[in-house]
Order: sequence, then C-alpha cells, then structure tokens
Amino acid sequence: MTRRLRLGMVGGGQGAFIGAVHRIAARLDDCFELVAGALSSDPARAQASAEAIGLERSYADWREMARVERARDDGIDAVAIVTPNHLHAPIAHAFLDAGIHVICDKPLAVSVEEGEALAKHARVARRVFALTHTYSGYPLVRHARQIVEAGEIGDVRIVQVEYAQDWLATPVERDGANRQAGWRTDPALAGPAGCLGDIGTHAYQLAAFVSGLAPSAVSADVHTFVAGRRVDDHVHAMLRYPGGARGMLWASQVASGAENALRLRVFGTKAAIAFDQEQPNELWFTPQGGAAQRLTRGRVPGAEALHATRVPAGHPEGYLEAFAQLYRDAALQIRAYDAGLEPPPESRLLTTVDDGVDGLRFIAAVLASSAADGAWQPLLQPHR
Amino acid sequence: MTRRLRLGMVGGGQGAFIGAVHRIAARLDDCFELVAGALSSDPARAQASAEAIGLERSYADWREMARVERARDDGIDAVAIVTPNHLHAPIAHAFLDAGIHVICDKPLAVSVEEGEALAKHARVARRVFALTHTYSGYPLVRHARQIVEAGEIGDVRIVQVEYAQDWLATPVERDGANRQAGWRTDPALAGPAGCLGDIGTHAYQLAAFVSGLAPSAVSADVHTFVAGRRVDDHVHAMLRYPGGARGMLWASQVASGAENALRLRVFGTKAAIAFDQEQPNELWFTPQGGAAQRLTRGRVPGAEALHATRVPAGHPEGYLEAFAQLYRDAALQIRAYDAGLEPPPESRLLTTVDDGVDGLRFIAAVLASSAADGAWQPLLQPHR
Amino acid sequence: MTRRLRLGMVGGGQGAFIGAVHRIAARLDDCFELVAGALSSDPARAQASAEAIGLERSYADWREMARVERARDDGIDAVAIVTPNHLHAPIAHAFLDAGIHVICDKPLAVSVEEGEALAKHARVARRVFALTHTYSGYPLVRHARQIVEAGEIGDVRIVQVEYAQDWLATPVERDGANRQAGWRTDPALAGPAGCLGDIGTHAYQLAAFVSGLAPSAVSADVHTFVAGRRVDDHVHAMLRYPGGARGMLWASQVASGAENALRLRVFGTKAAIAFDQEQPNELWFTPQGGAAQRLTRGRVPGAEALHATRVPAGHPEGYLEAFAQLYRDAALQIRAYDAGLEPPPESRLLTTVDDGVDGLRFIAAVLASSAADGAWQPLLQPHR
Amino acid sequence: MTRRLRLGMVGGGQGAFIGAVHRIAARLDDCFELVAGALSSDPARAQASAEAIGLERSYADWREMARVERARDDGIDAVAIVTPNHLHAPIAHAFLDAGIHVICDKPLAVSVEEGEALAKHARVARRVFALTHTYSGYPLVRHARQIVEAGEIGDVRIVQVEYAQDWLATPVERDGANRQAGWRTDPALAGPAGCLGDIGTHAYQLAAFVSGLAPSAVSADVHTFVAGRRVDDHVHAMLRYPGGARGMLWASQVASGAENALRLRVFGTKAAIAFDQEQPNELWFTPQGGAAQRLTRGRVPGAEALHATRVPAGHPEGYLEAFAQLYRDAALQIRAYDAGLEPPPESRLLTTVDDGVDGLRFIAAVLASSAADGAWQPLLQPHR
Repeated sequence: MTRRLRLGMVGGGQGAFIGAVHRIAARLDDCFELVAGALSSDPARAQASAEAIGLERSYADWREMARVERARDDGIDAVAIVTPNHLHAPIAHAFLDAGIHVICDKPLAVSVEEGEALAKHARVARRVFALTHTYSGYPLVRHARQIVEAGEIGDVRIVQVEYAQDWLATPVERDGANRQAGWRTDPALAGPAGCLGDIGTHAYQLAAFVSGLAPSAVSADVHTFVAGRRVDDHVHAMLRYPGGARGMLWASQVASGAENALRLRVFGTKAAIAFDQEQPNELWFTPQGGAAQRLTRGRVPGAEALHATRVPAGHPEGYLEAFAQLYRDAALQIRAYDAGLEPPPESRLLTTVDDGVDGLRFIAAVLASSAADGAWQPLLQPHR
Repeated sequence: MTRRLRLGMVGGGQGAFIGAVHRIAARLDDCFELVAGALSSDPARAQASAEAIGLERSYADWREMARVERARDDGIDAVAIVTPNHLHAPIAHAFLDAGIHVICDKPLAVSVEEGEALAKHARVARRVFALTHTYSGYPLVRHARQIVEAGEIGDVRIVQVEYAQDWLATPVERDGANRQAGWRTDPALAGPAGCLGDIGTHAYQLAAFVSGLAPSAVSADVHTFVAGRRVDDHVHAMLRYPGGARGMLWASQVASGAENALRLRVFGTKAAIAFDQEQPNELWFTPQGGAAQRLTRGRVPGAEALHATRVPAGHPEGYLEAFAQLYRDAALQIRAYDAGLEPPPESRLLTTVDDGVDGLRFIAAVLASSAADGAWQPLLQPHR
Repeated sequence: MTRRLRLGMVGGGQGAFIGAVHRIAARLDDCFELVAGALSSDPARAQASAEAIGLERSYADWREMARVERARDDGIDAVAIVTPNHLHAPIAHAFLDAGIHVICDKPLAVSVEEGEALAKHARVARRVFALTHTYSGYPLVRHARQIVEAGEIGDVRIVQVEYAQDWLATPVERDGANRQAGWRTDPALAGPAGCLGDIGTHAYQLAAFVSGLAPSAVSADVHTFVAGRRVDDHVHAMLRYPGGARGMLWASQVASGAENALRLRVFGTKAAIAFDQEQPNELWFTPQGGAAQRLTRGRVPGAEALHATRVPAGHPEGYLEAFAQLYRDAALQIRAYDAGLEPPPESRLLTTVDDGVDGLRFIAAVLASSAADGAWQPLLQPHR
Repeated sequence: MTRRLRLGMVGGGQGAFIGAVHRIAARLDDCFELVAGALSSDPARAQASAEAIGLERSYADWREMARVERARDDGIDAVAIVTPNHLHAPIAHAFLDAGIHVICDKPLAVSVEEGEALAKHARVARRVFALTHTYSGYPLVRHARQIVEAGEIGDVRIVQVEYAQDWLATPVERDGANRQAGWRTDPALAGPAGCLGDIGTHAYQLAAFVSGLAPSAVSADVHTFVAGRRVDDHVHAMLRYPGGARGMLWASQVASGAENALRLRVFGTKAAIAFDQEQPNELWFTPQGGAAQRLTRGRVPGAEALHATRVPAGHPEGYLEAFAQLYRDAALQIRAYDAGLEPPPESRLLTTVDDGVDGLRFIAAVLASSAADGAWQPLLQPHR
C-alpha cells in the first residue's frame, strides 16, 4: 500500500457541519490523513477546534498555512476548503500557488469570473482541483450515468430534477444560534444566490452528470418566501437542451416537511431512470411501456458502480460513503499527478473545478432570466 | 329508496374507452340506469354497440335522441357525453335545450368561447352540468382539499403538480388501430391542445381543487416530441398565484414508463400534503420539520372523505369508485334541481361546467405563453 | 347481450358490511340484477332494508324465499348468502334443493362435515357454488398464479403469508353497537374459529391459490389476546408441503395499526413473487440474484389478468372490482350450466365450495395442532 | 481529544468480507487506529494482507500476537476477532488473558458452553467484550428500543422478525472460489448452525434488543434446501414470551431475490413499530387504529438515536455507520474501564458477550426443538 496522503483543512471548526463530513469522508477509505488545519478565522476557535480533533498542526491563518506547509518536507499533499463561499477562491489560489492539490466544497466561488480564474489556475498549475458534488459519488448515480451513456434509455427527451428542503422555511437566520443559516443567507458570504447556489447547483450538476446533457437555455422564476431574507429561498426553472430535450428544475429550502429530497428523473425514447438521494441504494429503470425495475447497489454489474461500492447489496451505503468516494477518486488523481501520470480512468467521474464553473454559469443565467421576468437566457456549453 | 335516474349516453360505442368507464361509474352506486344512447356517429356501430350492452333505446343520431327523449314520459333525466371533444358543445346545448341534465367528459369544449356559452346555457336552463374531472372523486383528494381549507398546512407557498403518461411516446396515431390516439391527436376533433387538453387540464384542475387557489399568471413551454404529431405531447409551465405562491405543472404523454402518474404536492407554511393518483388510498401529510404521516382512506375522519367512501380502510378503492362518486354527486344534485331544492351540501364538490371553463382558460393562456416564448400570461380568475 | 341474471340475497340488511359489498360487486359488471331478498332474520329489518335499496321482492324468511322463487317463472337464478357463518349450510342446502345456484360468503360453514355435505350436494345438484374468496379476483393474484404455474419461479421452496388487522385489538364486541364484532366473536354464530376462520382462511386460500400447493402438515399456536373473548384473535402456523417446501402463516386481528394487510410471498428456485392486498395494482417479481420488477395491472400480458381487468394500467382497480370478478366468473359458469355446457375456461379460477372445504380442513388441523401444543397435524389433500 | 485507541485484528485477510468492514468501522469515527494484525492463518497471506493495507505490525500467529502485544508499551488496547466462528473462543481467551479488550464478530462461539466460559472470563478479567451485532448500531433501531421502553406502544403482544437472503440459494460452497460460502457451510468452522447461526441470531438479537423481551419457549422447523449442504439454510420458529406475547422468526439464505432483508415488527396494545434494515433511515410508528408515521433518522428527538447519528436527516447513513457505532461505544467503554470508571450511560446499548450467550442458547433451543419435531423447548432467560 502506498502511504496515506497528507491532508490539510481550511474551515470546518467547531459548530460547522460540512467540515466534520469532509473529515469522515477523507478517513473512510484510508486514503488521507488529516495533519494540518486552519479551522477557523477566529484564532482561539481554530486552536480549540484543532485540539478537539487531535490535529497535529494548527494554524491561525490559512495564508500562513499555505506558506509553511509548502516549505515542509512532510507538508500536506492536498487541502480541503470548507469555508463560506466567498473565501473559496482566495484560499484555493493560495494553495495552488503553493503547489498543493485542492478539494473544495461547492459552490466553487461567488461569480463566474472567479470560477473561470480558478479553473485556469488549476490547469496551469497542473494540480487536482476536486469540487465535492457529493451526490455524484453515489454508486447508483454513476450507474445511472453509465446507463444513459450506453444508450439504454435511448435519446433523452425529458429531465425532471428537484431538490427540496425545509430547514429555511422560517427565518432561522435571525436567530444567531444557527451559524449555517447565518452565512448561507448572507450575500456577502454566500454570494448572490441562496437556495439557488446552495442546492440548486447540486440539482443542476446531478442532472448534467447523469443525462450527459447541458441545457442551452433557461427560463426561471426565483423567489424569496421568507420576509426579510436577503437571498432567494426558492427556484423554478424550465430548461431547453440542444436537440430539443426539455427539462424542469425545482429547488426550495422552504418546502415544509422535506429533508434533503434531491430527485432526478430522465426519460428517453426507450426507457426512463429515476434516482432519489434519500434512497440511494436503489435506482429505478423503466422501459417504455414496461415494468419498473429496482436496481440495487451491489447487484448492478457496471464497473462505475462497483468502483464506488464497499459492502454488498442489502447493506446500505449512504451519504458519507458517497462523499468518501470523491476523496478516494481525488486520491487516485493526486497520486497520478504526483507521479507524472494521467489520472486513472476509474477516477474520471470525480467532479472538478470545471463542474464548478458550469454551476456558476447556471446561477448567473437563472438570476438573469428571473430578473428579465422569465425571458429565456442562453447557457454557455460546459467548460472543458 | 327513490327510483334510479334514467341516463342516456352519446358516444361510447365499441372500441371506445371512456364510455364503458362512464357506464360502470353510473351503475356502481345504483343511482342511474342506462336506458338510451346514441353510441356512435356511425349508425351501424351505434346499433351493434347498443345491442352488445343490452341497451333499450338506441338512436342513430343524438339530435333525434334529444328530441325523442324530451317527449317521452319516461325520457332520460340526464345525458352522459363521451364523444371526442369537438362535439361536446353542440350535444350539450341540444340536451340542455331539451331540459335534460348533462354529465360531460373533459375537456369541456375546444375553446374558451364555447365553454363560456355552455356555462351560461346551463345557468339559464337551471340544469346540472357535471364535468367528470375523475380525480376529484377520490376520497383522499377531497380530504386533502378539506385539510388545506381548514388551514392545517398554513398558507400555501408551493404547488407542484405533474401528470405523466407514456402511451404516446411513439407515433401510435399513425396506426389506425388505435382509435384513442387517432382522435386525441387530431386538432379537428380534440381541439388545439393535445396533451395539454387531455391531461394537463386534469393536473391543473386537481391543483386548483386541492389548493383552493387559481394562478394569476403562467409561463409555459409547450412541445411536440413525436415527429409529425399535430398537437402537443408535452407541457412545462410555471405558475404564479395571487399572494405570492408559486407553482409548477408538468404534463407529458411521452414520459417513458409512466402509466397514469398524476401527482400533486402542496407545501404550506405549516405542513405539506402529497397525493399520487396511482396510490389513491393514501395521502401524505408532513408537518414542517416533522414526520410524514400516511393518512388512509377509511381512517381519515373528514366528512368529505366519508361521503366518498364505500368500503373500510385497507380495502382499496380505485379509479372506478372515484368516477362513480361524480355520478353519485350528480344524482344528488339532479334530484334536488328536479325537486326545486338547493343542491345538498355533501354534493358541493362535484366538478361542473365552471371547472371546464377554467380549464379552457388555462389551455388558452398556456398556448399563448408558449407562443410568446414563455412570456407570462394572465389567467382570469375562476369562473363562478 | 344475454339478459342480466336474477340474483337473490339472504342476509345483508341494514348495519351489515358484506351485503352491500356483494350488491356492488354483483352490479359492477352488469351481469346480475338483484330482484329478491331475505335481508334479515328480523322481519321488520328485512322489510326496511329491502325498501332502502329499492328491492322488488322482499321475504321475511329465506325458506319461503327459496320456495317461492323456485316456483316463479322469473325466479332468481342465483342466491348470495351473506349471513353469519352458522347459517351458510342450511340456507345453501335449501336453495340448492330449489335448483338455484349459490354464491356464498366465506368461511363456507362451521365444520368440515357441513362443508363436505355442501360440496356433495352442489355436485349432485349440478349447481354452481361459488365461494367469495375475494382476493383471488384480483388480476395480479391471478397473474401470480399463472407465473408460478408456468414455472417462472422454478420449484416453490418457501411460502410466507400473513393477514393482519387491528379492528379487534380491543374488546369491541362488548359494545353492542359493533354488530360485526358481535357475531364474529360468538362461536355460536361464527363457528369455533375466530380470526382463524375470518381471515386465516383467506390467507390459507391465497397461498394455495397462487402457489398451487397444499400443505401436508401444520404446526400451530392459536391464541386469544383480548381477555374474555370467546374465540381466537391470533394465529401462528408453520406449514410443510409435499416435496419439502416450507411455509409460515400469520393471522391476527389485534395487530395494532394494521388495516387489511394480507400479504403473500412465494420463493422458488428461480425467482420470487410478492403481493400485498393493500397495493393490488402491483405484483413484485424478483429473479434469484436479480432486480425486483414491479409488474402492474394492465401491463402484464397474461390472459388470466386481462380477463379480470377493466381499466388500463395506472387507473387503479380495487377490492370491489376483485369482488365483482367473482360475480362475473360465477355468471359465466351459471350461464354455461343452464345451457348444459361446460364452464368456460376463462372462468376456471372462480373459487368454489371445494375451496371452502379446504379452508374448513385447515381450520380443523390448526385447532387440533394448537390443542396438542403445536404437534404437527396432517392436512388432507385438496378436495377435488 | 484523547488519543486514538490501538486496535489489533485477527482474521480479515485478503478475500475476507467482514474484516474490511471492521476496519472501516473502526476508522470511521476516529476512535481507533489499526496497528497490528494476524490477518490470516496462512503466514504468506497474512503478510501480503498486512502489506496491502499498510499495517505496521503483522503476525503470522495470533498466539504470538497476544503475547508480544501484551509486552509492548504501545501494545494494542483491543483486538478485533473476525475469523471463522470456531476460532472465536480460543482467540478471545488468549487476548483476555493478555489483558486486551475484545471486539468479536458474531456468533460468539460454536456452543453454549464455549460462550458461557467467555462471558465468565470477560467478567473476571474486567475487560470489555463487544459482540458486533451490527444492526443494533442503527440510530433508529436504538430509537425503536427507546419507544418500546418508554411504553409508547403499550404492552408488547406480537413480535414478527425475519431475515432473508438469497446468496446460498444454489450450492455455491461447492465452488471453492466463494470462501465465505465455504466456511460458513462447514460445521467444523461455522459450528452446528448454518443460516440459524449466521443470520438467525441477528434476527433473534434484534427482536430482543428492540422489544426488551426474551422468549421463554420456541418451536422450530429447521431445514436444508440445497442438496448436500452440511448445515441448515432455512429456519422457521414460533416464539412464546413470558406474559403471553407471541412471536415468529424466519431466517433463510435461499429466499430468491432477497438481499439482506432483516425486518422487525413489534405490535403492542397501543401502537406498532416496524424497521427494515434495507431502509435504515426510517422507522414506522403506527398507533392502534391510526395513521402510520415515518420517523426519520436525524428528526427523531431521542437521545439514543442522536448519540448514534453523524449527519442530518435526509443524508442517509448506512451499514458502515451502524457498525462504526459499535466501535464508538466500545471505545467509550474501553476508555472507562482503563480509567477505572463505570462505562458511560450513552454506551449502554453496546452488544456484548452476554448477547452472544443468549444467541447461542437460542441456537441450541431451536436445534433441539426441530430435532424433536417442533416440540416447544424452554429458553433460559437472558444472561446478565
């Protein structure tokens, strides 16, 4: 076995949610060892957070961390960026400058321009830049993509994707106790998109990932239901694809009773597939005019799914395993990059900075359409 | 027991689908007896169809039928109109003129003007004019309406409704054998709307029936996937409601693998409800932040649901029972009208010519928006 | 069309449940017309009940009804017996003696001896004797049988059947208002078996109907949970089949929260099937090691299912339609008998007096095993 | 943060399934660090397996490992035993003798006597002896237990538990390639019970864990379907509980199409609960006569569930997280033991050697009953 990769983390201190998730994900498949961190912009909290998790090297500032780690023989191989959105870009640039691979939470940045600059920087620096679109780590999401790619559903006609949550149905951000709600509804920290950036981009990415299609135009109605909220909490959008396929996207954080209801259906000329993130161990495949089949993780034969599977069918895997898959694929790519090799084919489904740029373009187009009372806005084709 | 009402039927001859359904529905609760019919515009087929079902009085022409039945002492009390759409209006006018109550399949007619004239005629003639929006006959659809009406989900914020089928995913209308597909895709018989009129109006009506809300504007993208088809087979629409609620409607007859997937979700400030026509014995109620509850037909306490229920919980009722409920409610109203009384309160949920007008207005607005590349079109408030 | 058959009914007066169900079932497919009845053993109630449903010929006594109807030119063709169990046998004998076909609710009688005598009488009299094991009227139950019969699941290994209800979880029979609970827990009226006879026999029949197998031995534990109840309300049984297959049967009327949860699973060497009565429009078929398929009523190709189907896939049928199917099949057989012909093949799945005898033998063996502390008791092979 | 505990492992070399699962489980919550192992009884395989996972200290023999690790200052705190069943007891004794805590896969041993000796040894040695009944690590299984314990379902009446798999439906053990099937069907390695020991004990434990009840007697029918198989592959059992409750247990490894279908239902006088291992993020609670509620991991308020939860509702956790929970609880207890403290209350649900003894007693009683043709056998009350 090759050595574990050394991981650093920026953000993810006490009270954060996604930092702890990244740490479990990094550990789960034994590819990474967390050795350094600047876990909070507040030095005292950074220190306390580091101690709480037994972190060896704690930094009060991420700039210093990038500088010092670059200089160490046993410096980190990669950094996980789990701060509020507005800091993604400056931090990522700093670590890329230090020759350190980047694993960044989504959305990538707060503007298309920021995102494009990051993509360019990563390309020039020849560093891995993984973007953690978690749901693309599910074995059956990857299998769904493989099914579509293999033509098993025929030509795609309809894409219906939705992502519903209820945790912002009331103005929880006014209560300072909910740090998540606080920064995610503050445009200065989250960027101009609220629900649209937080979960709308996940829905958009999932649809693109599985269908293999990027829309050419979007007509949208973005709305804020909760009085006083400074960002959107609800998005309706219609999509048009090159070739005539049609799509619909709904994202809401005020959908009472919804937990984390990300669901995708893709209908082709020959069959349809359906995936529900809350039931990730099953994927539905229904032939035109025929009986629905419940494909299960561990029983589907596809190589993409097998690569992302740990335990047999009937032993449910979940969100943390999907997240770990991104870390596993990132590890494969990092080792390849560091050895001067091409990333191995089995890691090809890792979502990257390019997916992040696509997401930022989607955000921009949706906001533009909504501002123009639903006029169709063109969407640039995927950044590759 | 009062006598069974005498029912006539226009359309519904051999090879038709919905005529047989109406006959079962009329019979199921023992309120009607079918005694006369002009089952086909083809006299030979009309006669053969009448014989096959043991019908007493068979007519070769519906005009003659209206005239003769009006004159008989034991003439029909009501007529069921189950022809292609373009004939609904002339037939209904003829029977209204004959003083005969009307039970008409949907959509009501082929234009808003036709529909409004029918509504006016029925009002002036003081005859019952039921429109068979079948799905509003389900006990749990009525219970859902009652829940919303009672404020149990709070203020409505989001309405997501969809109706997906797959039976027109291929150009079946080219094969003359499928009579259904033939007339439903022929604008001369079905009217200007295909999927939009056939099932889009059902979705629209269901959403309005349960939510108690009518949209004030719609932005739509109507599409025809199957080459050579003369009407639409796919509809995407975004809805805006007075007060700020938002909605989405999807109707498709090319959604591979979908049978008759009419589904409604309504999210309010306090809770959400969800209904799936293919599982009509359950209704989901989920409080904001809480656990979903599976309410079942036969166990819900509401009077509206009880009125529409025949057998206890766990003994599934289905589509034919929902349809029969409309006939039962129509019978209650017909008896009341004929006795010079107000329709009894328990029959108040019967869908009528007014719902038909609303549906035609929806069709017109959707077609207008789609023709204007999605520009928002106003929707007149419900006709009442 | 041939004329509607004339139907009489014994039992089913006001306050009864199953009588109304039989009446809808008889009417639904337009094969029968209810013309006569002795709806209650209480003459006043009989009269009032007859008037409430507009019945032409009401009798105060079923013996008189058999005698008079036999003598009339337009006497009934068949009688539906929907009384408490202890009266099934005497009433059926009387109508068989009158040359009238019998449609009887289950269980057939209150002892094996009674049942065997009825079977013999029907055979000698050459009359149809249908027993309304409702659930065998579901299209997908019939399709399941056809699948097994065709060898699609291989050799049957395991049969798991259960029927759970909760309506007797408390001593509702003490409250005189619940007439159902009253007679069904009174051994003088219901026979020696409570839950076992009421729903255990349904479970047993369903398992035999679909699997095509009859157990050779049973080991049982019969129990009464509710203090003071005079019959059982809970049954556990293990089954052994000739050839080595194994089975389990659970029936309970004290299973809190259960509505009418009759479920069957049959596992063979090649595949398994599963049916849930509360979701009767779907049947699950899972190949060994493979993906579950959701077969739907209306899309399965089998002739048995088609024969029992009225409306297309996605338009749910339910309990009343399943019940109506038995009436439709009985009508087919009655017409054939009366014409001196063999019953038509498509009616062959009608459950009859022979199924009733099998059920009574099952009841006897279960009670004997439970009395012998679970010792395995032989079960006579099916009566044919 | 306190240091990670040092973990050793016996068994779990290349080709094994459960060893890799233990390693992920140990790592997931960052409580353990795997530092030593005797991963195979074959020295070459042991060495290769150790290298493949980057293990620091690899031993060719577990006896040597126990001796050497005991002597080291940085010796392991605990050992994970993941060998075939017949070796559990000797290995566990050796490590207990060395003062090392034990985490053992189930079943505990191959006889009641072996099990009782282990329980006694652990008690005397004052070492933690965890037994990995994985499914008791699910948050909602723990919540189910808490619900029953709190009296929310009233007095327990009925326990229905089943565990179905299909992976042994054919004689896969004859093909040497399936190492799992090889040893699990070899009585010399697996003990006298096949399916009964492998998954029947899981079902039994789950039922006991949630219901809080241990049966007083069992009547069983144990069977081997696959010709030539040397252990059972199918178990049917009826259960009687003190106080009159009744239960049924079904375990099968020849249930075509079943993946890992462990399901429990407990019915009380007031409500019922249901859990399906394949959908572990939901727990159903249905009040007597009422509507089923879908409780979800992350939204249930109970402390037991929260203690076992990592990510919010709607972000599925699975089998590995449940397994990790046992390691987390074992870590809590090991730290307490080593500090001379009582195990903390939040760790109280860890399954231990005592649960193992209960399972072995269940195996013995089932085999005895089946050998006596289903005669009821007493079950000793739980070992505590």
